[in-house]
Amino acid sequence: MIVQSVRWVGGVDGHLELIDQRKLPGELVTIRCRSVEQLHEAIRTLAVRGAPAIGVAAGYGLVLGLQSVADRAGPQAALKALADACEYLAGSRPTAVNLFWALRRVRDKTEQTAAAGANVGELRQTVLAEANAIYHEDVEMCRRIGANGERFITDGMGVLTHCNAGALATAGQGTALLVLFEAHKKGKRFRVYADETRPLLQGARLTAWELKQAGIDVTVICDNMAGWLMKQGKVNAVITGADRIAANGDTANKIGTYSLSILAREHRIPFYVAAPSSTFDLSIRSGADIPIEQRSAEEVVRPCGMAMPMVPDGVGVYNPAFDVTEARDITAIITERGVIERPNAERIVKHLSSS
Amino acid sequence: MIVQSVRWVGGVDGHLELIDQRKLPGELVTIRCRSVEQLHEAIRTLAVRGAPAIGVAAGYGLVLGLQSVADRAGPQAALKALADACEYLAGSRPTAVNLFWALRRVRDKTEQTAAAGANVGELRQTVLAEANAIYHEDVEMCRRIGANGERFITDGMGVLTHCNAGALATAGQGTALLVLFEAHKKGKRFRVYADETRPLLQGARLTAWELKQAGIDVTVICDNMAGWLMKQGKVNAVITGADRIAANGDTANKIGTYSLSILAREHRIPFYVAAPSSTFDLSIRSGADIPIEQRSAEEVVRPCGMAMPMVPDGVGVYNPAFDVTEARDITAIITERGVIERPNAERIVKHLSSS
Repeated sequence: MIVQSVRWVGGVDGHLELIDQRKLPGELVTIRCRSVEQLHEAIRTLAVRGAPAIGVAAGYGLVLGLQSVADRAGPQAALKALADACEYLAGSRPTAVNLFWALRRVRDKTEQTAAAGANVGELRQTVLAEANAIYHEDVEMCRRIGANGERFITDGMGVLTHCNAGALATAGQGTALLVLFEAHKKGKRFRVYADETRPLLQGARLTAWELKQAGIDVTVICDNMAGWLMKQGKVNAVITGADRIAANGDTANKIGTYSLSILAREHRIPFYVAAPSSTFDLSIRSGADIPIEQRSAEEVVRPCGMAMPMVPDGVGVYNPAFDVTEARDITAIITERGVIERPNAERIVKHLSSS
Repeated sequence: MIVQSVRWVGGVDGHLELIDQRKLPGELVTIRCRSVEQLHEAIRTLAVRGAPAIGVAAGYGLVLGLQSVADRAGPQAALKALADACEYLAGSRPTAVNLFWALRRVRDKTEQTAAAGANVGELRQTVLAEANAIYHEDVEMCRRIGANGERFITDGMGVLTHCNAGALATAGQGTALLVLFEAHKKGKRFRVYADETRPLLQGARLTAWELKQAGIDVTVICDNMAGWLMKQGKVNAVITGADRIAANGDTANKIGTYSLSILAREHRIPFYVAAPSSTFDLSIRSGADIPIEQRSAEEVVRPCGMAMPMVPDGVGVYNPAFDVTEARDITAIITERGVIERPNAERIVKHLSSS
């Protein structure tokens, strides 16, 4: 089964289809997004999530943004609508750099086309073509990450992963999980432990679902069990995705990743990050400068929207969505271009400038 | 407000009252236990939990165990009923040593009384008196742990705790939490971070509730946020309870404690364990020999009994209730007798033989 978390249907007047990840694993439901407002809500509430998938969805969101502009309004009105849609969508999630990257890319391309004298109809085609390009590059990027990373997975291993860096997090078939899918396809036998990943349980709900679909042996644990599992020698590698990587290799990813990196080092377990090169943000020198999204207390207080609050009234809740793993605790970063072993600023620049 | 998690009502024909901890923080409900079967179920399903509270409840359980023996049946029948009740209740939770300790203590005392020629009525009185003694010693034990430990809490600190080692876990007002209550009473100002403690959320539901009742500043976090909090310098001490401590100081406590101990060492944060001396099991040389209770997958799959499973059908779940923290990562163990700094086998023997 091929999981398609993000899919554009039709031409410039089409719509965006998203798997509603809030409903998994109970139901496999598709949402049809026909406006930027709907997409903003879908990103904000994590109906669509995962840095690459958000980037792809945002690109298509700009096609939606131009649908309300009349052809006769002229290219300047279209560029204005595009700028508004970019600004609006950029506010949906503050940490995932792919979101800003995709918006910027589509906007730049469209502005160039407008400067060359295109009309509104041609601008619509440009936006859709660029969004499609991002989509197809993402699919190819995933494929290459899988091919570049599968050598780190060997027969008999226990592999721990956190949150969801799978087909549900990308337009393609995943980053960290595609490394596992690829190793599985090559006939390697290994066991995956999926951190449930509180508060939103993406590991239990999404990663376990994807791995089971692929026929991979998967066991769900609570996040606080990872260290004990390592202590017992059951984990031989940790692999996660990334939401933003600073110039020095410090990596923002789902809250809990930092703790895992410390526990992995303590137990001498290699720690891999799998992410597209668009995840690098060279404008940010180190992890200290990556803004961390703080999310609502409700996610902690009512696990999965349950009626009864699990935290007493009036008690404070701290709910950062991400944390930052230090480059020194990352064994290697796997991208579509290859592998950066022991990442640092110099190796990253070299990697990103390779073709 | 004084929280009484375990309370005997009446004489030898009385019953046991327990706060139903499964219902907190939503409702404060009391269960009346009138049979060992009911108590076994209450312990197994964590209506009553926390090693000291389980010990106290088990002592009273033996009073219930003798209620079905007729006076005319004779002391041998009473001892047989007592032995049966001990064996049955010992099967309710495999890790908490206080359970076995309390059952053994009441049984030994009663057998001595029987050997001295007591009748069934006198044996009932002996069982109740010994259960009451355990209860009152527990209250006093808590008080002393608080007095011995409060010096480790200082103004302006951030203190992290895991699971619930409070009034709900003891007959008295707690172990680790009483250290905090005592520091608060002395006018010290500090902030507590309570790990929610998956799968059963005792930290979010019980610890946050108790601390709020006491007027202490408390913030709930997901377990996977603790490392990130430490990294930001917000945690200056970690304090937890214990379920069993081996002769060398290795300490079994709620799953997740081991990871915290590694993270605390990494961030140079002192790690304290507060527990009665009955938690030591000198028959066990090191943590490697402590049996670890494996609990049902349902606790992970359906957080707090919610209807929709959060793990896909057919996916494995690993759910150990405890893990073992190494003695070398414990800054000090606080008991009712005093403080064991940098615990090891020698210091522990010396501590336990002091009066």
